[in-house]
Amino acid sequence: MKIMIEFLTEDFDEFNIYLKQKAPSLLIIIVDENTHEHCLPVFLPNLETDVPFEIIELEAGEEQKTLETVCNLLPVFAEFQADRNALVINLGGGVITDLGGFSASIYKRGIDFINIPTSLLGMCDASLGGKTGVDLENLKNLVGTFALPEKVFIDVNFLKTLPNEELISGFAEMLKHGLVADQKHWENLIVLDEISPENIAPYIKDSMQIKQNIVDQDFKEKNIRKTLNFGHTIGHAVESLFLKAGNPISHGNAVAIGMICETRLSFLENILSEEVSDKIIFNIKKYFPQSDLNFDNNEILALMKNDKKNHNSKIQFSLVDHPPSETT
Amino acid sequence: MKIMIEFLTEDFDEFNIYLKQKAPSLLIIIVDENTHEHCLPVFLPNLETDVPFEIIELEAGEEQKTLETVCNLLPVFAEFQADRNALVINLGGGVITDLGGFSASIYKRGIDFINIPTSLLGMCDASLGGKTGVDLENLKNLVGTFALPEKVFIDVNFLKTLPNEELISGFAEMLKHGLVADQKHWENLIVLDEISPENIAPYIKDSMQIKQNIVDQDFKEKNIRKTLNFGHTIGHAVESLFLKAGNPISHGNAVAIGMICETRLSFLENILSEEVSDKIIFNIKKYFPQSDLNFDNNEILALMKNDKKNHNSKIQFSLVDHPPSETT
Repeated sequence: MKIMIEFLTEDFDEFNIYLKQKAPSLLIIIVDENTHEHCLPVFLPNLETDVPFEIIELEAGEEQKTLETVCNLLPVFAEFQADRNALVINLGGGVITDLGGFSASIYKRGIDFINIPTSLLGMCDASLGGKTGVDLENLKNLVGTFALPEKVFIDVNFLKTLPNEELISGFAEMLKHGLVADQKHWENLIVLDEISPENIAPYIKDSMQIKQNIVDQDFKEKNIRKTLNFGHTIGHAVESLFLKAGNPISHGNAVAIGMICETRLSFLENILSEEVSDKIIFNIKKYFPQSDLNFDNNEILALMKNDKKNHNSKIQFSLVDHPPSETT
Repeated sequence: MKIMIEFLTEDFDEFNIYLKQKAPSLLIIIVDENTHEHCLPVFLPNLETDVPFEIIELEAGEEQKTLETVCNLLPVFAEFQADRNALVINLGGGVITDLGGFSASIYKRGIDFINIPTSLLGMCDASLGGKTGVDLENLKNLVGTFALPEKVFIDVNFLKTLPNEELISGFAEMLKHGLVADQKHWENLIVLDEISPENIAPYIKDSMQIKQNIVDQDFKEKNIRKTLNFGHTIGHAVESLFLKAGNPISHGNAVAIGMICETRLSFLENILSEEVSDKIIFNIKKYFPQSDLNFDNNEILALMKNDKKNHNSKIQFSLVDHPPSETT
């Protein structure tokens, strides 16, 4: 079940060698407006292949990650006469890898796809782990599959193309990896003064490794993988509410809010001391200061009741239980 | 990868025992207008469980088996607050098992489903083998997944609820099983004077067994499972054309036409003698006399170019190569 991750060197040799061995019948490169402008001009000149390719550009933004977009996308695959040996290349952030991966996984009962994440969130989280998905009627990731990309290629230089809020958004998932699985990683991150591509780059491999180790042990999320849902039960509900209100916030910001609430919940449930809980919240708030919500509790609860993780209509949380010595 | 098949006895004991062990959080029973009227009144009184259930009724007909219907169906699952432990029960023919199975396989990244096929086609073909799928913009099964039902329950009495043309439609797949894999089965079938539930019932288990043996050897259709596509390359194109012309024909009728053409093709490709080819066609035409087409060859070719089985834009056929002695 292990996904192969390769870090790309300047001329994308690793990618071209893979493509030569794979010999697909067609490449379908999915980008959004931003990666079309900033990443495709880096990618295409390095592409060395005789395989024909087509480019599909989607509008940018979380609001595009819907089953409706998939309904529009798949007939385009068919128009390109993509057969079962076509290869989908998702060149973009989490929206593109989630949506492109899902589309590939249901086109003609599944064709291969690879991810080239261009955002920090994509690199550290969305492009790994084989969860694909799209939203339906404002319900986050209601529809999806477990489908692994055949490869994930990383070029950290793409981070320089990102607006700062995108970088911060991905940073939330890195913090989560530290909190749920690796104290040292958490400690490395919370001393960073500024979230910049240069500061973050050295820790990306660690974050990917943490995620992949957990996914390897429990692909279908029956036990340990659930720890990665820390912050996401409340986070997803918050994200849905903002989206519904026509005022979308970044996934990372929603997860940060979720982590703050669920850390407090960990204290209230007596699995974390108040002191440690406060320290964790303090450190998250350093990077995510805007965490006030103006929504009705009942609305949030109603959304959480539809969370995928629930069992017998009971809302499930993954909380943190670090002993005090493990958080600074 | 083996699907468990159980033949139901009168009080559906086998089903109730399964349900007790499984203990799902919710049952979502999907029916169409016909099975709502004819099969649900048999099913529900035999259902012995405390698990809450919901019934979803779809319009009947192949035209409903689209991604659009799935888009309407999944939010209803969410409304029922179906969690990952909900169980979808597909009570219907191939349209219901294909569409319900696909919907279950992508809802919250996949929930379990079982099939209770009520048509002959469903019993002998669609409910088995783990292929789910729906049409998109008149392209047959363009979208789908490989997803196995947890169980398939068979009640041959449901065949009595079928109009005769439905019975004949399913008979085409039974003939195919004989032609591609089991001479004795073929010989048993072509001596039947009339296609009636009583005449067919004794041979259903054989047909299911043939299909399951082949699927077991090659779930993802890399080699031997392709034999089951006999008649389907041309058959699917023919079915799409009729559907597009607003004059849908049954899947079995389309497959019968496909088998006739592809048998002739087997002769033209020198893998079958003309004599054997003629005998096979004669026997298929006994049950499927209306096999004249009035479509443009280019239109059929264009549709075949989008067939899932193609490789590098070459149309792929699965043909028959029986030695003369093996067909009567």
